[in-house]
Amino acid sequence: MQEFKPTEHQHVRYNPLKDEWVLVSPHRCLRPWSGQTEAAPEDQPPDPLNPLLPGATRSSGQRNPAYTSTYVFPNDFPALLERVPDPPPSEHPLFRSSAAKGTCRVMCFHPDSTMTIPLMTVDEILAVINEWVNQLQELGRKYTWVQIFENKGAIMGCSNPHPHCQIWASSYLPNEPRVKERCQKEYFIKFKRPMLLDYLKEEMIKKERVVIQNAEWVALVPYWAVWPYETMLLPINGRPQRMTDLTEEQKRSLAEIMKQLNIKYDNLFKCSFPYSMGFHGAPTGPSAAPGDSPHWLLHAIYLPPLLRSATVKKFMVGYEMLAQSQRDLTPEQAAQRLRECDDVHYKAKK
Amino acid sequence: MQEFKPTEHQHVRYNPLKDEWVLVSPHRCLRPWSGQTEAAPEDQPPDPLNPLLPGATRSSGQRNPAYTSTYVFPNDFPALLERVPDPPPSEHPLFRSSAAKGTCRVMCFHPDSTMTIPLMTVDEILAVINEWVNQLQELGRKYTWVQIFENKGAIMGCSNPHPHCQIWASSYLPNEPRVKERCQKEYFIKFKRPMLLDYLKEEMIKKERVVIQNAEWVALVPYWAVWPYETMLLPINGRPQRMTDLTEEQKRSLAEIMKQLNIKYDNLFKCSFPYSMGFHGAPTGPSAAPGDSPHWLLHAIYLPPLLRSATVKKFMVGYEMLAQSQRDLTPEQAAQRLRECDDVHYKAKK
Ligand SMILES: O=P(O)(O)O[C@H]1O[C@H](CO)[C@@H](O)[C@H](O)[C@H]1O
Ligand SMILES: O=P(O)(O)O[C@H]1O[C@H](CO)[C@@H](O)[C@H](O)[C@H]1O
Repeated sequence: MQEFKPTEHQHVRYNPLKDEWVLVSPHRCLRPWSGQTEAAPEDQPPDPLNPLLPGATRSSGQRNPAYTSTYVFPNDFPALLERVPDPPPSEHPLFRSSAAKGTCRVMCFHPDSTMTIPLMTVDEILAVINEWVNQLQELGRKYTWVQIFENKGAIMGCSNPHPHCQIWASSYLPNEPRVKERCQKEYFIKFKRPMLLDYLKEEMIKKERVVIQNAEWVALVPYWAVWPYETMLLPINGRPQRMTDLTEEQKRSLAEIMKQLNIKYDNLFKCSFPYSMGFHGAPTGPSAAPGDSPHWLLHAIYLPPLLRSATVKKFMVGYEMLAQSQRDLTPEQAAQRLRECDDVHYKAKK
Repeated sequence: MQEFKPTEHQHVRYNPLKDEWVLVSPHRCLRPWSGQTEAAPEDQPPDPLNPLLPGATRSSGQRNPAYTSTYVFPNDFPALLERVPDPPPSEHPLFRSSAAKGTCRVMCFHPDSTMTIPLMTVDEILAVINEWVNQLQELGRKYTWVQIFENKGAIMGCSNPHPHCQIWASSYLPNEPRVKERCQKEYFIKFKRPMLLDYLKEEMIKKERVVIQNAEWVALVPYWAVWPYETMLLPINGRPQRMTDLTEEQKRSLAEIMKQLNIKYDNLFKCSFPYSMGFHGAPTGPSAAPGDSPHWLLHAIYLPPLLRSATVKKFMVGYEMLAQSQRDLTPEQAAQRLRECDDVHYKAKK
């Protein structure tokens, strides 16, 4: 039989952070697509009534200040509230419910609705990162988990193009970080080193999945990536466990690599590249303390839905929902395509 | 403080089949929606070149027979192939890949492109079920897992409205059934009864999540449902572990309940209701034998994306991808709304 070629022959890959497999079927890229297409992300005309604008009145009746940098306020339709009664104790092991307390905030990145991370200056992105650290510091004192995430683009359920993210803090440790906590701990007990540090070391030697790198961070397509152009940002130096551990250099460098990665994303399909992104670090809460989670390494994750163009996404549906995630190009191919994208934003070239 | 009301107060619920939690935030239904809307599922004009039609020539050059009931053929762009070289052994615990063999088939439900399950007769649906059993019998002899699934509607990545499903058989046990296998086994060891039998017993007493029921099956919104109108079909009598264990009565009754449930789905938002659905039963393969998996109970799962109307779906994005699934109405509310839907298809009433 032929020799195995990862870019031609299907195989499964293991994600040690989540104890899950992904089916890689690169030969499937040949499949023609005649199904649903999405509206291309377009520049929307500025809406003078946009409730996220400085000075605007929101649906709650509250008025935003004339902010000039970032601005954080409570989500007017929060999925998590602080003061709600607890459910009664569960009577049956198959009908278990549990209390969930929390708070949801919205954070504007910039006063200008037409801005996005790749178009903002490094200083402006640095202001966002500094505010993330503040938020994590404050909410992390009380809550076990503080999820910072950005849904970008209408295709990702984002209903307002104004540059913003959300912060949902909860009294419980959600599924995704709970599994990552367990897997990293098991690895640490077995190998006496943080999993992601070992992973990073190998990736820096292999280089084939690295998209970009600067003094403090590397952006790579994980070996086990599920979404076509999924990436992960990992810190190269030190072992920051949470965003609150970052040094000044790491913060500025993070702003730089976020800008660079997002320029490449936008250039890939010449559109404002949609995604959900967020940060995962060691759990927080009243008993958490710096350095208490040596099995963790802080990282950011970008999960973009597009597969073939600005209008054709990857559908994670029947097989993926009921059986296992499946991808149509290899992580190495995705990394190469992103590497080859220009470092100057296509809009800046006009 | 107030008394806890599940329809008003956020809480988390545990899914014992998957060892996962879901955040239930029913107060969030009040949130207005100004984000992306989907094209309403519409009747598409019949396409005389549709490659799934009887007598049509497909992109592979193969010609379909003049079939009059169901018709199964190999997927022309399969994600899984039978003869591919194996990847070399993994050298590092963080870079593990493994061989994946398999086969992908497409199964037409009916010769008429305008048909869907709720519009087909019970006998026609029974023919589909009988063919599923045949397929499972044949492919299950060789493969560890045979995933039967239907992606219905363009919103679910379905590129052809002709009524059809897919069958992907693999040499590996995919993530979802692997976790269900583990969780059901652990429960069986602990309680000496199949988890889903215990679950079913309770649900038949409580009734609040039951949508419909007939002599052999019940359709209910699971206590831990993630998608707004997610449902599960469970067999009431006996303990079928796989589709191949079904009696003639169970098969006919399944056809009936599938039709009834789908009529309610279509009536909910007056559209051809999109979803991904599929069956989960005990794993198969050369060493599997009837009755060898007493911890399993065969079930079907429907995962529909719509939340508010034919055009507004639930976005499973940032928080859901990075932290935990979140739902905006309780499973009991969803069950009630479905129960209240008419039993006669809205199109049949014209
Ligand atoms: O029906 P198709 O064209 O094979 O493909 C569809 O279902 C597959 C299995 O769930 C997914 O992997 C694809 O993303 C989706 O478009
Ligand atoms: O940005 P919004 O309107 O709060 O909501 C969006 O993000 C939330 C968190 O990922 C999701 O639960 C919603 O389905 C989505 O529409």
